[in-house]
Amino acid sequence: MKNYIKADEWNIIEEGFDPHLNKISESIFSLGNGRMGQRANFEETYSGETLLGNYVAGVYYPDKTRVGWWKNGYPEYFAKVLNAANWIGIEVKIDHELLDLAKAEVKDFKRVLNMHEGYLERSFTAVLANGKSVAVKSTRFCSIANDEVGAIRYSITPLNFDAEIGLMPFIDGDVKNQDSNYDEKFWDKVSDEIIGNEAYLQLRTKKTAFEVCTGSTIEVYQGAENLNLKFEPVYRDKFVGLSTMVTAKANTEITIIKLAANLSSENHPKESLLQETKAVIANAAAKGFDTLLQEQAAAWAHKWEESDIVIEGDVSAQQAIRFNIYQLFQTYTGKDDRLNIGPKGFTGEKYGGSTYWDTEAYCVPFYLATAPQEVSKNLLIYRHKQLGKAIENAAKLGFKDGAALYPMVTMNGEECHNEWEITFEEIHRNGAIAFAIFNYIRYTGDEDYLIQYGLEVLIGIARFWKQRVNWSNDKQQYVMLGVTGPNEYENNVNNNWYTNILATWCMKYATEAAEIVKTKANAEYDSLLKSLNFKDQEFADWADIIAKMYYPADAEQGIFLQQDGYLDKEQVLVKDLPASERPINQKWSWDRILRSCFIKQADVLQGLYFFEEDYDLETLRRNFDFYEPRTVHESSLSPCVHSILAAKLNDEARAYEFYLRTARLDLDDYNNDTEDGLHITSMAGTWMSVVEGFAGMRVRDGKLQFNPFLPGKWKSFAFTIGFRGATLKVNITEHGINIKNNNDVDLEIGIKGQIYKLAGNAEIGVSNPELV
Amino acid sequence: MKNYIKADEWNIIEEGFDPHLNKISESIFSLGNGRMGQRANFEETYSGETLLGNYVAGVYYPDKTRVGWWKNGYPEYFAKVLNAANWIGIEVKIDHELLDLAKAEVKDFKRVLNMHEGYLERSFTAVLANGKSVAVKSTRFCSIANDEVGAIRYSITPLNFDAEIGLMPFIDGDVKNQDSNYDEKFWDKVSDEIIGNEAYLQLRTKKTAFEVCTGSTIEVYQGAENLNLKFEPVYRDKFVGLSTMVTAKANTEITIIKLAANLSSENHPKESLLQETKAVIANAAAKGFDTLLQEQAAAWAHKWEESDIVIEGDVSAQQAIRFNIYQLFQTYTGKDDRLNIGPKGFTGEKYGGSTYWDTEAYCVPFYLATAPQEVSKNLLIYRHKQLGKAIENAAKLGFKDGAALYPMVTMNGEECHNEWEITFEEIHRNGAIAFAIFNYIRYTGDEDYLIQYGLEVLIGIARFWKQRVNWSNDKQQYVMLGVTGPNEYENNVNNNWYTNILATWCMKYATEAAEIVKTKANAEYDSLLKSLNFKDQEFADWADIIAKMYYPADAEQGIFLQQDGYLDKEQVLVKDLPASERPINQKWSWDRILRSCFIKQADVLQGLYFFEEDYDLETLRRNFDFYEPRTVHESSLSPCVHSILAAKLNDEARAYEFYLRTARLDLDDYNNDTEDGLHITSMAGTWMSVVEGFAGMRVRDGKLQFNPFLPGKWKSFAFTIGFRGATLKVNITEHGINIKNNNDVDLEIGIKGQIYKLAGNAEIGVSNPELV
Repeated sequence: MKNYIKADEWNIIEEGFDPHLNKISESIFSLGNGRMGQRANFEETYSGETLLGNYVAGVYYPDKTRVGWWKNGYPEYFAKVLNAANWIGIEVKIDHELLDLAKAEVKDFKRVLNMHEGYLERSFTAVLANGKSVAVKSTRFCSIANDEVGAIRYSITPLNFDAEIGLMPFIDGDVKNQDSNYDEKFWDKVSDEIIGNEAYLQLRTKKTAFEVCTGSTIEVYQGAENLNLKFEPVYRDKFVGLSTMVTAKANTEITIIKLAANLSSENHPKESLLQETKAVIANAAAKGFDTLLQEQAAAWAHKWEESDIVIEGDVSAQQAIRFNIYQLFQTYTGKDDRLNIGPKGFTGEKYGGSTYWDTEAYCVPFYLATAPQEVSKNLLIYRHKQLGKAIENAAKLGFKDGAALYPMVTMNGEECHNEWEITFEEIHRNGAIAFAIFNYIRYTGDEDYLIQYGLEVLIGIARFWKQRVNWSNDKQQYVMLGVTGPNEYENNVNNNWYTNILATWCMKYATEAAEIVKTKANAEYDSLLKSLNFKDQEFADWADIIAKMYYPADAEQGIFLQQDGYLDKEQVLVKDLPASERPINQKWSWDRILRSCFIKQADVLQGLYFFEEDYDLETLRRNFDFYEPRTVHESSLSPCVHSILAAKLNDEARAYEFYLRTARLDLDDYNNDTEDGLHITSMAGTWMSVVEGFAGMRVRDGKLQFNPFLPGKWKSFAFTIGFRGATLKVNITEHGINIKNNNDVDLEIGIKGQIYKLAGNAEIGVSNPELV
Repeated sequence: MKNYIKADEWNIIEEGFDPHLNKISESIFSLGNGRMGQRANFEETYSGETLLGNYVAGVYYPDKTRVGWWKNGYPEYFAKVLNAANWIGIEVKIDHELLDLAKAEVKDFKRVLNMHEGYLERSFTAVLANGKSVAVKSTRFCSIANDEVGAIRYSITPLNFDAEIGLMPFIDGDVKNQDSNYDEKFWDKVSDEIIGNEAYLQLRTKKTAFEVCTGSTIEVYQGAENLNLKFEPVYRDKFVGLSTMVTAKANTEITIIKLAANLSSENHPKESLLQETKAVIANAAAKGFDTLLQEQAAAWAHKWEESDIVIEGDVSAQQAIRFNIYQLFQTYTGKDDRLNIGPKGFTGEKYGGSTYWDTEAYCVPFYLATAPQEVSKNLLIYRHKQLGKAIENAAKLGFKDGAALYPMVTMNGEECHNEWEITFEEIHRNGAIAFAIFNYIRYTGDEDYLIQYGLEVLIGIARFWKQRVNWSNDKQQYVMLGVTGPNEYENNVNNNWYTNILATWCMKYATEAAEIVKTKANAEYDSLLKSLNFKDQEFADWADIIAKMYYPADAEQGIFLQQDGYLDKEQVLVKDLPASERPINQKWSWDRILRSCFIKQADVLQGLYFFEEDYDLETLRRNFDFYEPRTVHESSLSPCVHSILAAKLNDEARAYEFYLRTARLDLDDYNNDTEDGLHITSMAGTWMSVVEGFAGMRVRDGKLQFNPFLPGKWKSFAFTIGFRGATLKVNITEHGINIKNNNDVDLEIGIKGQIYKLAGNAEIGVSNPELV
């Protein structure tokens, strides 16, 4: 755990330069706009430890799988997000010496991520080997107003000497992925072009043949005066640079404005990619840096309007929750139903930038509440578009008749992962995808979604579960053998309670959904079921499984069993584990982890979270009291579920304690892995801890309900929620809860079990005596 | 399945050249002498499909492990047997055209492996592109009389034309392993030297720094006349050649004698390796090819004296059983306790030439009966020498206090395998190593072995099991969680019956062995236990586990359960599997295999085979009748156990049927994988089917016992067994059994439960009426 980020309500601040922290900071200070993103690499040369990262959404490469021992059904390729052309580069020479913070003496280094306005600022003074000192300040952003544009303002001031400053802004496509399995480079050049102060580089990915054109235009100013410099073109392998020299008087600031664009063939025809990039550059240049930055600030202000959480009395918590919200919106804006949320977003290569069940289980609730309905709908449509591949994927594993198994890890719908115990057996992901449909409709009331997209997906998923269970003669019940639950510290277990319960729930919900569609849109229903070759017997088969499914439980303790045989394990508690043996995934061999009772992340409890209405509070309490002490939370996705359940059990102290475990996960580099990138999807879990945990927000019977408490350390917290056309400002203080309805939509709101009317543009307050 | 090998009692014969079969034949016609070995590659150039393979025992390379996802505890390196310098090469040019069977027209091709005398012969006529025809005949062997020597006689006859024959015999060390994980070459040159007709190449392995010096000497004859040719030396990268030209009149035979030596730093000091290689070459040259071949024939005759099985009435079976015995003795001669038996011996790269539990479970019984006692003793000592590494290996997985876990796959005692479900969990291998000690002592009566070596190993193993079980509060018994049994079509199961029974057996046997050592050698006992820091409490702990171990069983059916939950599986029988879905390991994805009831190889039945005395025949029958129909036998090690048990259950027809499944596994390329190398260890299983199955041989109470039957297709079968100083010729015909004692050792022999005295050099016959 590190503790070098300065607390501030709206800014992430690093002061002083420590090369050992640089890769961590590169992750934390990452920029993105949903369409492209990048790590906080330096513009100028840096020969120290760095992980160069520029990413373009939807552009991936199927890297050849590396395995020790091949198993039937493994995917041959692992689609991974590509490190794309570096467009931020500006080579700087001061009196012919390269500016390189790994070689200079660095003073007054400061890095600030301004979350309110959406830009990254960096300033420092460098004393070069030649004894010369320069002050540098850079400002950079990826525009969310125009998500193909990025902009840099980079200023250099020679201190107390007249400097010859050599400048070469460049675009470098000769990059590779650090995690390339066979050290391959993934890009080929299509074209390069330099005209005057503009440079363009068009690249094509190997195998997938995506094309990305990166362009930039350069202006150099002294104060407000455009120097209108001439540039020497520099062509190298997959590299275009503009070289120039400028003389700066002592203490005079020279400023380079670099405006860049990244256009991908996912959004433009390949043949006009270069022309369209030129047009985007021309447009950006016409606006200029300051206007672009104003647009950026305005766009972010709008996002914050819809999604901000204000915490009073705890600057560190305030900073953390805004950081989480900020990074989630940098990663996914919901404009494109072909895109999704990689666990590291645009902040690193790890996990290949691919889609996991994290999206459905953790991110959908966040986007449902904080962004327009289309945003979460597009996340759902993403899976609908990939239904065909999910059916193919299931067929590879021996399933048939339209059964769909969504991949564990995917970029384009094909499975990318190759550990059999995950790829083939962690099938509960299929249930999370169905649950997200349910959750979306519960939140939005948009039942039309079922007609157009949802039912088809639900039938494919239900068909999978139907084939995946088998009848046990021994138990005279249906069982599900050989699965891995959300707790990945168990592999290939029989009757994982969570997966069993999820499977029958999916069949129930698919049946209900079919009924809804049949009622609301009979013609579409008939046509869909016909196209799916659906037989009514399938409903009967599902009903039989629903009626006769086996769920492991221990009657004596009144708990559900994570899986068959769980009570055969030596029952040790996490509190009795020596600190020297934690985290167990770094200290113990895999077999030892597997046969221990320790739980990586919520498993039975994840099921109780999803389906809380089906269980009384005492059942929840017994299971929580049993499983929580056995959970090591070695997944960043775990504590939020425990936090929400603890809140529900009125254990406010522990709800807050679990929240703390992820709130500053990356800001404080809790797990020593922030350098690989940020834990984007778990950030949604932190948001859930606050809104579903502390505020106890639920949607039940089409109504928003709250069951709030105020964490002891806080003076108040407030958040904004969009719900069925209303924008609600919810404020929770020691005195009670206040909800302001900022639109003219009438609502009914539940608070602590009591239903209140909340008219359009009205406000409601329930004070604490009534609450407790 | 192929069927191109001609039936013959003593020879393996291929007639006609089919390039598509060449890699299969390269495996089948392999040569070896326990110290070195090679695939049946051609001496002359061959540009067609070939897997070049020359191997030197004990010389391995730790190839960097390749995995998809790293797990704690995985070994970083996978030791693999190296493809070593090719010493057989003779480049031949006929009137300047390269002789290459991939480019010439090949006629009258014949390849013969003479198993009786231990050499490989090959003859053919080649019509070259230039229209010239030559007849070629080569004879080659790896001497078992001097196991550092190999010899080739290679004759060329130009047919109907006077030929200019260019000859370049060479040693080529610029070779690589086809299975190299990162396409590395594994050898560096130490020295090369050519003097007159001798060439030497000394190589060193990267990382491990083994050195091997390969030398050769060349003579060229016309008829009986030594042409005393001069050679041009040819030096290339890790390559030495001797080039010459000879003119041969039409129909005159030119013969090259190439005598070679391979000396390894495992057996000679590195600094004198070259000198000693020269001495070996000089000695071989002094003897000459014919004398070396005579020695070879005599040595093989001696081996056959001790180990032959004669089958009358079935040439194909006769050929097969001799092939199996022959290949086993080519692989392992028992001279060196640092060597062991790789699953492919010297016939291919696959499985890395490493040691598996195959040795203890399958090979030890074969060598016990067919070779001097030292041979199997050395196989046991091999594991004793590696005890320290087994303790280190266990420590890596969290075990302590001297607990030993032998590796699943090893070359030098370190674990080489990296599938967690095998490496970490297929721990029953540890039991097989203890069982082999028991089996060796049961067979030989050599209890001194316990004192010197055995007890120390047994204690290490028992300590492992003690720590590996845990107390189940639920069951109020000890359980063993998270294992993989011999049936690798189940992973990470709880309470594998075989492993549980083996574990307690190991603790029982270690306790008994301690008692024996204490009684026979009290001082050594005290000193050993002190050095092991052994506490008497450990015996008590073992006894508690022995008393309270849980063994899964189904009372209703009266069977042991392969593991917890086995009866939850859909119970389908192999006979109901469509042929199109077999073998399931090629047709099904891994998860489907895992959750099916299908069994790869004997598992419960392996336990009943090891511990048959503990179970009555009805128990055996019930388990056999339950498990056999669920067994797909997709391991070559499976059918032999089923054959022996079927024989015990008097099901002669099925005993024979199971035997047939492996008897000609490689000769008929049953599994389409012979091209990778031969299934050496499963060959011992075939021998067991005949001797333990058909002849019903056991050792009980220190006496050999037989319970024979004659397979219906056979007229008779006879085999030779060494037992406690006696050499017994056992002959089984339709009339009964006859045993001849060829030494002057008096024995008692059991036949069908009746004990007979068999005096030295006497004979005993029990005729069939009495047998049945």
